[in-house]
Amino acid sequence: MLGTAGAAGAAGLALGAAGATGYASARRPDPVTALTTVGTEAVPFHGAHQSGITTPAHARGHLVAFDLAPGAGRKEAAALLRRWSASARTLMAGGPAGGGHDIGIALDAGPSSLTVTFGFGHSFFGRTGLTARRPAALDPLPAFSADHLDPARSNGDLWIQIGSDDALVAFHALRTLQKDAGSAARVRWQMNGFNRSPGATAQPMTARNLMGQVDGTRNPKPSDPDFDQRIFVPAKAPTGTPEWMTGGSYAVVRRIRMLLDDWEELAVDQQERVIGRRKSDGAPLTGGTETTEPDLDKRGPDGDLMIPSNAHARISRPDANGGAAMLRRPFSFHDGIGADGTPDAGLLFVCWQADPLKGFVPVQRKLDRGDALSAFIRHESSGLFAVPGGARQGEYVGQPLLES
Amino acid sequence: MLGTAGAAGAAGLALGAAGATGYASARRPDPVTALTTVGTEAVPFHGAHQSGITTPAHARGHLVAFDLAPGAGRKEAAALLRRWSASARTLMAGGPAGGGHDIGIALDAGPSSLTVTFGFGHSFFGRTGLTARRPAALDPLPAFSADHLDPARSNGDLWIQIGSDDALVAFHALRTLQKDAGSAARVRWQMNGFNRSPGATAQPMTARNLMGQVDGTRNPKPSDPDFDQRIFVPAKAPTGTPEWMTGGSYAVVRRIRMLLDDWEELAVDQQERVIGRRKSDGAPLTGGTETTEPDLDKRGPDGDLMIPSNAHARISRPDANGGAAMLRRPFSFHDGIGADGTPDAGLLFVCWQADPLKGFVPVQRKLDRGDALSAFIRHESSGLFAVPGGARQGEYVGQPLLES
Repeated sequence: MLGTAGAAGAAGLALGAAGATGYASARRPDPVTALTTVGTEAVPFHGAHQSGITTPAHARGHLVAFDLAPGAGRKEAAALLRRWSASARTLMAGGPAGGGHDIGIALDAGPSSLTVTFGFGHSFFGRTGLTARRPAALDPLPAFSADHLDPARSNGDLWIQIGSDDALVAFHALRTLQKDAGSAARVRWQMNGFNRSPGATAQPMTARNLMGQVDGTRNPKPSDPDFDQRIFVPAKAPTGTPEWMTGGSYAVVRRIRMLLDDWEELAVDQQERVIGRRKSDGAPLTGGTETTEPDLDKRGPDGDLMIPSNAHARISRPDANGGAAMLRRPFSFHDGIGADGTPDAGLLFVCWQADPLKGFVPVQRKLDRGDALSAFIRHESSGLFAVPGGARQGEYVGQPLLES
Repeated sequence: MLGTAGAAGAAGLALGAAGATGYASARRPDPVTALTTVGTEAVPFHGAHQSGITTPAHARGHLVAFDLAPGAGRKEAAALLRRWSASARTLMAGGPAGGGHDIGIALDAGPSSLTVTFGFGHSFFGRTGLTARRPAALDPLPAFSADHLDPARSNGDLWIQIGSDDALVAFHALRTLQKDAGSAARVRWQMNGFNRSPGATAQPMTARNLMGQVDGTRNPKPSDPDFDQRIFVPAKAPTGTPEWMTGGSYAVVRRIRMLLDDWEELAVDQQERVIGRRKSDGAPLTGGTETTEPDLDKRGPDGDLMIPSNAHARISRPDANGGAAMLRRPFSFHDGIGADGTPDAGLLFVCWQADPLKGFVPVQRKLDRGDALSAFIRHESSGLFAVPGGARQGEYVGQPLLES
């Protein structure tokens, strides 16, 4: 009896969450069997910021970059962003894509927390005659000594991040947006990622990456007083930031291959000294829990620093980088066995900041020089994208750039 | 108040389901927040049959084939299957891999319905001096005219299917089993797949594939009176089937690329005539619901058969193939953009049967000759594996083959 009452109660919560989302009637959950909100959860399309930045990590994600087709300019780009926004809004509410041409892959499923996030790369502005509106923050990132970047999988005129807690819903969105591109743009590169499934852990926890490390402990939280200031472009931005970026953010995207065969040869205590944190729970090697401040001066019985001078957690900590802060929101990736016989797996690093020169760049500069983790990772691609604020009702993403 | 009671009730169900599984105490769900059983669900390792055959479809899967290393024979293979079985048993119960060398990727998560299924390919028996015990059912499949098979991604001495509802749990099992292989075997090929996440639909439904079609309507059900006979090798098997395969099954594995760019150019009604079923709900084009029998002789107002003569559902139906039956349990795959610029996506077709010559082969022969779907798919790899019965307590999978 308790079990049935429990199921009905949980379904009540689920229906409540989905109430105002335009969730198609054919997808309405059965009030007794719907124990989870995986399918029914919907993220709003309209808002001050685009979705997919502060949205909790998704079980499945696609990153895709497009280049405008030869001959396509500002007019074609505006029409494309209008089509893309219309599709994103519809799919995020759980509806089929417009015009009777839905390809059907997401039928039966709810919106499953789908988010679609659009960005513009440096090259977009030259191709559309909008160079005068290009943010200074899109200037190319500095080269790092550890970079092994593949230009074909880096940058691009346009970038889309798709996330969902259901793999078919995410794939459906990817295919729909590719079809929307029509003759205006072609895919430059495309990558797939994943995170834990909702409910796989007893409660929400900091993610683990494919090295088995707790990853994201120091991420700023939306409840932090300076969160918005660090992650989103303010209305009165400094020189070099155009007004159309108000409420926007800059995404740095890096495909970071993990050299897992080498990493897994290390004993756990060796791995922990590379990171500076315990593998089991992410606590600093100087003790406490995951959120305890590391004691950077503490030495062990042998006289050595307990958190070595080149430990990743020491070098990447925000207070060592002028208070730099970025919101890391990555996916893991695994594309099978690489050409060299080792796993083609690692992190699709995606980080968000109001200014890459205060967020990603200073941290990566320090890591580039002295991070013990460098021997076990390889940056294989890089992208930097200006992600405008969210669209208002009746508008599309990027409209203030393309039409004002 | 109802919400809280509901959550506690649902968690009660979850704890009940996980009660006897050896679920590590560190991973015990919080009784208030654990709304789902995604993490806590555990599948038994021991039993008459291996797991992963009748287990409901998993959100995430890995298929991996190994070849024995040069010089490795029966003794090394037996030791390897012993190591693999020990790891599978431990991981499926939610524990860390043995010997203090767990790589940590699955820490925090429950077993998440993990299954690990082991099989032997044709070439295994020659390399281990066991040719006399090779089942006749492992004789190579006939060639089909539509085959575009890549030998490097086909067959192999040993095959493992890994499934879980959490992607990190699945990856952890894959890496652990690869490490277990040590110097005894090396990876021949490896593929990744997925299905819907639990809870993405309001209730369990027949899966959809990446063409958007309901896929698996005619699958035999474990409750069918002849299910075991069709899927599993009986204790008193016909000539050519060795006793060590009692309780086992044969897996046919095909990487079936979908030509999605071509497929999506068809209008929905054209797609429906290719399949013979409605896209929205999988019902036959002659009416009813998904489970209604198709009326194969019914003609429309134009005098044409409503289910065309070359429709996939007509040609593949079991009663047209001498009652052939196989249990299809596929994953979708999506490996980004292929070398030809089209999506490298489709179906990791895995089907199970007591005898491939009565299951897969006759159906594929008919499809090969006249299936309208053939124009939109391409078989890119093929494998056939003898999957022995489940291990008894204290034994490992394949022990009756390798040690008796």
